[in-house]
Amino acid sequence: MEIHEFQEMMKRIYFKRDSERGVNGTFNWLVDEVAELGEELKGVDRLATEKEFADVIAWLASLANILGIDLEKAALAKYPNKCPKCKSSPCICTF
Amino acid sequence: MEIHEFQEMMKRIYFKRDSERGVNGTFNWLVDEVAELGEELKGVDRLATEKEFADVIAWLASLANILGIDLEKAALAKYPNKCPKCKSSPCICTF
Repeated sequence: MEIHEFQEMMKRIYFKRDSERGVNGTFNWLVDEVAELGEELKGVDRLATEKEFADVIAWLASLANILGIDLEKAALAKYPNKCPKCKSSPCICTF
Repeated sequence: MEIHEFQEMMKRIYFKRDSERGVNGTFNWLVDEVAELGEELKGVDRLATEKEFADVIAWLASLANILGIDLEKAALAKYPNKCPKCKSSPCICTF
């Protein structure tokens, strides 16, 4: 599924709730989901870890939806098949 | 671009660096990028905000690459075109 299709799907399912919750509340949820992902990374439950990855990208898409930002366009503008810093693929940054 | 293609692109550009940095270091970068997104949300610089969205999905993909997790598969397993809790689209959860 394309990134923008996933974002559209999240919009269909959650936009009303997301827009009512607003930017700050949705960002806080994203932070919580990242923290939950961090907790799962300490364990060995693969499926639970995958679900937390799903939640992080889902809440990121929800936040983008509230702001009217196209996540796919933003991602490819910054990462156009090469490192934005050294302009190479693979990255050859020396820092 | 499909989610798995974006993840593959990140793998081509960054996998060597990501795998050397490891899970914990890469997770910490993801947390930092989420914090930077939060800072940009307080301002009015649209392009800067878009770049932070790009960084969050990029570092999420990098982390998934180190773990060998398919981000697209994980996302669609949890969000198969409906809310995983109420099984509806749009979501009609009452909490």
